[in-house]
Amino acid sequence: MLRTTNLCKIEVINTMKKLILSLFVAGLALAASAEDGHLLWLRSQPVNKAKVITKKSSPTIQIAKEELETYYNGERVTLKLDGKMPDDDGYRIDGTTITARRDVGLLYGAYALLRMQQTSALGHQPSALLESHPTYSLRLLNHWDNPNGTVERGFAGRSIFLNPDPERMKIYARANASIGINGAVLNNVNAKPEALKTESLQKAKQIADQLRPYGIKVYLSINFASPIKVGGLTTADPLNADVIRWWKDKVNEIYKMIPDFGGFLVKANSEGEPGPQDFGRTHADGANMLGKVLKPHQGIVMWRAFVYAPQSPDRANQAYLEFMPLDGQFADNVIIQIKNGPVDFQPREPYSPLFTAMKKTPMMVEFQITQEYLGAANHLVYLAPMWKEFFSFVKPASLKAMAGVANIGDDTNWCGHHFAQSNWYAFGRLAWNPDLTSEQIAEEWLAQSFDMKAAANSQLLSVMLDSREACVNYMMPLGIHHIFAGTHHYGPEPWYAPRGVRADWTPPYYHKADSIGLGFDRTMNGSANVKQYPEALCRMYNDINTCPENLLAWFHHVPWDHRMKSGRTFWDELCHKYDDGVREARHFLTVWDSMQPYVDSQRFEEVQRKLRIQARDAEWWRDACLLYFQTFSHRPIPQDMDHPVHNLDEMMKFNIPIGMYENPAQGYTK
Amino acid sequence: MLRTTNLCKIEVINTMKKLILSLFVAGLALAASAEDGHLLWLRSQPVNKAKVITKKSSPTIQIAKEELETYYNGERVTLKLDGKMPDDDGYRIDGTTITARRDVGLLYGAYALLRMQQTSALGHQPSALLESHPTYSLRLLNHWDNPNGTVERGFAGRSIFLNPDPERMKIYARANASIGINGAVLNNVNAKPEALKTESLQKAKQIADQLRPYGIKVYLSINFASPIKVGGLTTADPLNADVIRWWKDKVNEIYKMIPDFGGFLVKANSEGEPGPQDFGRTHADGANMLGKVLKPHQGIVMWRAFVYAPQSPDRANQAYLEFMPLDGQFADNVIIQIKNGPVDFQPREPYSPLFTAMKKTPMMVEFQITQEYLGAANHLVYLAPMWKEFFSFVKPASLKAMAGVANIGDDTNWCGHHFAQSNWYAFGRLAWNPDLTSEQIAEEWLAQSFDMKAAANSQLLSVMLDSREACVNYMMPLGIHHIFAGTHHYGPEPWYAPRGVRADWTPPYYHKADSIGLGFDRTMNGSANVKQYPEALCRMYNDINTCPENLLAWFHHVPWDHRMKSGRTFWDELCHKYDDGVREARHFLTVWDSMQPYVDSQRFEEVQRKLRIQARDAEWWRDACLLYFQTFSHRPIPQDMDHPVHNLDEMMKFNIPIGMYENPAQGYTK
Repeated sequence: MLRTTNLCKIEVINTMKKLILSLFVAGLALAASAEDGHLLWLRSQPVNKAKVITKKSSPTIQIAKEELETYYNGERVTLKLDGKMPDDDGYRIDGTTITARRDVGLLYGAYALLRMQQTSALGHQPSALLESHPTYSLRLLNHWDNPNGTVERGFAGRSIFLNPDPERMKIYARANASIGINGAVLNNVNAKPEALKTESLQKAKQIADQLRPYGIKVYLSINFASPIKVGGLTTADPLNADVIRWWKDKVNEIYKMIPDFGGFLVKANSEGEPGPQDFGRTHADGANMLGKVLKPHQGIVMWRAFVYAPQSPDRANQAYLEFMPLDGQFADNVIIQIKNGPVDFQPREPYSPLFTAMKKTPMMVEFQITQEYLGAANHLVYLAPMWKEFFSFVKPASLKAMAGVANIGDDTNWCGHHFAQSNWYAFGRLAWNPDLTSEQIAEEWLAQSFDMKAAANSQLLSVMLDSREACVNYMMPLGIHHIFAGTHHYGPEPWYAPRGVRADWTPPYYHKADSIGLGFDRTMNGSANVKQYPEALCRMYNDINTCPENLLAWFHHVPWDHRMKSGRTFWDELCHKYDDGVREARHFLTVWDSMQPYVDSQRFEEVQRKLRIQARDAEWWRDACLLYFQTFSHRPIPQDMDHPVHNLDEMMKFNIPIGMYENPAQGYTK
Repeated sequence: MLRTTNLCKIEVINTMKKLILSLFVAGLALAASAEDGHLLWLRSQPVNKAKVITKKSSPTIQIAKEELETYYNGERVTLKLDGKMPDDDGYRIDGTTITARRDVGLLYGAYALLRMQQTSALGHQPSALLESHPTYSLRLLNHWDNPNGTVERGFAGRSIFLNPDPERMKIYARANASIGINGAVLNNVNAKPEALKTESLQKAKQIADQLRPYGIKVYLSINFASPIKVGGLTTADPLNADVIRWWKDKVNEIYKMIPDFGGFLVKANSEGEPGPQDFGRTHADGANMLGKVLKPHQGIVMWRAFVYAPQSPDRANQAYLEFMPLDGQFADNVIIQIKNGPVDFQPREPYSPLFTAMKKTPMMVEFQITQEYLGAANHLVYLAPMWKEFFSFVKPASLKAMAGVANIGDDTNWCGHHFAQSNWYAFGRLAWNPDLTSEQIAEEWLAQSFDMKAAANSQLLSVMLDSREACVNYMMPLGIHHIFAGTHHYGPEPWYAPRGVRADWTPPYYHKADSIGLGFDRTMNGSANVKQYPEALCRMYNDINTCPENLLAWFHHVPWDHRMKSGRTFWDELCHKYDDGVREARHFLTVWDSMQPYVDSQRFEEVQRKLRIQARDAEWWRDACLLYFQTFSHRPIPQDMDHPVHNLDEMMKFNIPIGMYENPAQGYTK
C-alpha cells in the first residue's frame, strides 16, 4: 500500500516534470518564434525607465516621448524646440537634451538617441554633442504596389496598403521615421488610372492619417491618361484647357482629403505608359502642367527620366537624348527622377550621364531597394556599397532628393530576406546622410538587428560589405549587363531572344557575344555613349586600356584574348570572376552557419536556407553564363577553378513559372 | 559579259567549296559519332598487313589468325602449339612467335601481342620474350540478367542475351577473350525456375555456340526449387531420390545441348531464395548433390555464401557462422563463392573473414563490377584499387577462381559510362593476373580506349586511380557503410527506416548514429565480429586506437569527439572527408574538361555529363549525410570547408522513382 502510494507520487511528480518541461519547451519555441523579424531593427525590449520633459505637445512629439520613455535606458530626456536652428528636419543631441527646429526633428533626435544606445557596444557612444541635418529634404520610398495587391518586382508578399493593418502600419511608420524617411509613394509607377478615383483617394487619406504623426507624407503615381480614363475626356493633352481643369479639380479633391499631400510621381512615355508625347507635347509640357496645378498646394512633381525606345541602337543613350534638350525648361516644383544607371538597376552600371550633364534642372536619384536584378528576396546583397559607388561619381549636393523603390510587402519580416531589411535601413540612412560609409551603416544595422555577439562579428560585417561585389561576380562581372531571364529577372538567360520580342528586351542586345568577344561597344566607334560623360571620364571609358575593368564590357566589345591587368585573358578573367562569385557565396553560408549560437533559431534557419539558395544560384549563374559564352569564345575554362556542373541544354530548357510579382522559391536546383 | 562569267565561275567555285566543306564536316561528324564506345577497348583501325603462320587450324586459332592479320602492324606472326608447356590457358611470346599448350592460349597470346602494340607508346614494348599463365583457371562474369530482359543492378540497358545480336555477341566475346575471361553465367543469381526449361536451354545453347570459339563457357544460375517448379515434384530435398534423378536428367539434357557447359551458380537460402535448409538439409547437402550430378560432365557448382537473416544482431557475422561448421564437407567440384566483403559490395569493407577462416574448402571471390553501390553508371569509379585492396589481405593463391558481377547491358557503349568499361577490363586482367597493379591496368586501358594524347595524360590516370577513394569519401568514409537509399542503392538515405522494413535493410542498423557517436560496434564488447579474423587482425581491429581509420566506424561505435590521427575530432574528420570527396569529384570534371582537344566529341560530352552528375551527387551525399548525422552530433560543421547547400528536410522528401533495374538519369539535382 505504501509502495503504491509512493509509486503514485512518483507518477505525479513525473507528470508534473513533463508538464513543466513541455511548458519550458513551448516557452523556448515561443521565444524563438518571436524573433521573426517583424519588428525590423527596432527590436529593443521596453525598459520603461526614462522620464521625458517637453513643453510643447503634438502627435509627433508625443511619439518621440513614448519611444524614449519606453526604450531609453536613462533617467531623463529633455525635448526642446528651437526656432534658431536651421529650417530643416535636423536635430541636436547634447547629453540627454534633444533640440530641433521642427517637431519631427525631435522625433528623429529621439530615434538617434535610441540608435546610439543600441549601438554603444560597438563604440557608438551617445555623444556629448551631436548635431545632424539631412542632406535631402525629400527622402522617399516608392512602392510599386498595384490596386489588386500585387507588388511589381516585390518579393516579400502582397501590398501592405491593400488592407492596411494598424499595428503593421505603425511598425512601418516607426521604422521609416527611425531612419528619416519622410515620404511614401503609395502605388506603382506603372499607375492604374483608378489610383485617382475617389475611393482610392479615400484609402490614401487613411494611410496618410496614420503616417502623418511620424512625419511621413504620402504621394501618388499617376497615369498621364487619367483625364481620359477617369475623367471621361477625349484627350490628356497637357496644354488642353479641359485637361488642365480636370487636373486642377482632381488635385483640389486630393488636398481636401490630404492637406499635406506630397505630390505626383510620373512615368510617362515609357514602356508603353501614356505621356505628353502621345499628344505631340514634350516631357516638360507634361511635367510643368502638373507642377503648375500642384504649386498652390506646395505639391511637387517627380517626373521619371526612364525612357527608351525599341528602335534605338543603344538604350543607354536615350534618357540623355530625350531630356538634355529640355534642360532648364522644367518648373521649379518639378524634379526629374533618374535611375542611378542609364539602363535599369543592374548589379553594376556606370552612373546615368544625365546626372552630370543636366545643369539647369532639379534632379533626384531613384535607387532600387527591391532586388529586381540582384537575386530577389533570396540573395543576401547589401546594397549600400552600390549606392555609395554612385555617389563617388555624382556629388550628393548636385541632387535635390533621393527615392528608393521599396522592398516591402506583407511578409512577416517585411522584406522576404531578413538581411534585405538592411537595404531599407541603408537607403534611409543614406538619404539623410550620403556621407555615411557602407560599413558604418552595416554595423549600425547589425547591432540593432541581432544580439551583440552575432552583430559584433567582423566576418558577418564582411559578408555584408562583400555581398554586392560577389553578386556582380556570379551574375555579370566585368561590365556585362542585363543577361537576365526574360520575365522574372531572377536567373540567367543570356540566350533569351524569342522571335517577336523587341531586341532591347533580350540579353544578346546587351552582351553581343560573338567569336571576337563580348560586350557593348559604347565608344566613339560604337554607340558613342561615352560622349555623354564629362570629358575626362569619356576619354577614360573610351579607351579599352584605361576603362575600369569592372565596366569593360559595358563600354567595349572586349576581345576574348584581351589582356587584363591580372595578366589573364579576358575570357579567363571572366571565368575566374564567375567562380570567385560562387566561392564567395559559399563562404557567406559558411560564415552564417558559424553564427548559429548567437542568432535566434527562426531567423538563423530562414537566413541559412536563403544563403543555400544563393550558393546554388551562384553556381547556376556561373555555369549558365560560362557555358553559353563558351559557345562563342571556343576557349577552355581555366584549369585552376571549379568547372560547370550543370548542362547548358538543360539550363536552357529551364523556366521558373513566375511573373514579376513573386519571389522564386528557388532557382535551378533545390 | 566577261565579268558576269567570272562571277559565275566564282559562284560555282564557292558552291563547290561549300559542298566540299559540308561533306568534310559531315565526315568529321561521322568520324566523331563513330566513337560511341561500342568497340570497347578494341578500337584499332585494321592494318591488314601481317601474314600469320600456323600448322593447326581450329575455330579458335582461326580467330587468333584473323585478329593478327587484321590488326597487327608487322609482317609476320607464327602460332605454335606446344604440348610441353604447362597445361593451362597460358602463352609465350618470343618476338613474333606465339606458343601455347591450348588453342585458346594462342588466342590469348594474339590479344596480348596486339595489346602490347597498342600500349607501346607508353613503354610497353613487345618483349623479346614474354610468358604468361593465368592465376585462376576460372575467370567468370556473372550476369544478373532476368528472362524478361531486365538486369538486376544493371545500369546499361537491357540484357544482351534477350535477343542476342550476332555482331554484338562477337564484340562481347572478343572483349572477354582479349582479357582472358573464359566463362559467363548467363542469368541472375536470383534465378527464375524457367531458366532450366528446355526453351531457355535452347537459348543458352545458341549463346554457348557463339562464345565457344573465343574460349568462353556458359554457366547457369539455378533456382534450388526447380524440381518443384519446373519438374512438378513435391519437394526439392537434395537427399530425395526423385529430386536427384530430376537433376541428373536435367543435367544430361543440358550437356546434350551444350557439351562444354560449365556448371551451376547457386544462391540458396539467401534473401528469400529457396535452398536445402527449407528441407532440413545443409548448404553442403545441397551443393554436394548438384556437384555429384555435374561431376560426370566435368561441370562445377559455385555455391554462394551470401547469407544473412533478419533476426541476427550483426549481418556481417552470418556467412561465417553458417559456413564455418561445413568447412571440409564440400565435394571437390563445389566452390564456395564469397563476396569480397562480409556485408554487400560497399564502397569499402574489410575482407570477408571466411576467406582466411575456411581452410578445407575451395573458395572463389565474387567481386561486383557493376556499380550497385558506387554511383551506378553515373559515377566514374575505377574499381581495380578496391579489388587490389582485397588481395592485400587475401592471398590470391588461397582462391580457386574469380567471378565478377557484370556491368554489361545493351547500351551502345555496353556499360553506360565509358569509364565503366575499365572495370570490366580490369576485372578480366586481374582474374588472369592479380599481381598486376591498378596503375598498370589503367594505363593499358587508357592507351587502348583513347588516342594517345589523352591516354598518356597522367592527370587522367590519377583521376582513375583516385576515383574509388573519392567515392568512399563522398559516400561513406571512415568505415561507414550501407547508408544507401532503400531500394535503388544510388543516393544517400541514412534516415531510411520505414515501419515494417526489416532492420538489416535499413541504414540505421549499420550506422547506429546517436548522441554518443557513429558506427557499428563489432569489437569483443559488441558483436564480436572481429573474432572471425586472424588473431593479429582481430587485435588490431578490436582497439579503436589501432583500428585503421578507414574502417573505424565499421568496427567501432566511434565517439564524436574521438581524436583522429589528423588531430581533428571524429566529427570534424568526417565532415572533411565528405568535403574532400566533393572537391575530388569536382577535380575529376576539371581534368576531364581539359581532355576535350584529345577525345572524340561524343565520348567527351557523354563522360562530361556523367562527371557533372558525379560532382553534383557528391555534394548531395555530403549534404545529406552531414546534415543528418549533425542531428545526432549536435556539432558545427568546420569552418574550413564548404557548407551544405541543400536542406535536409527537402532531401529527405526526395525520391528517385526507379527500382533495381535502371540507371538514374541524375540524382538530387539536374
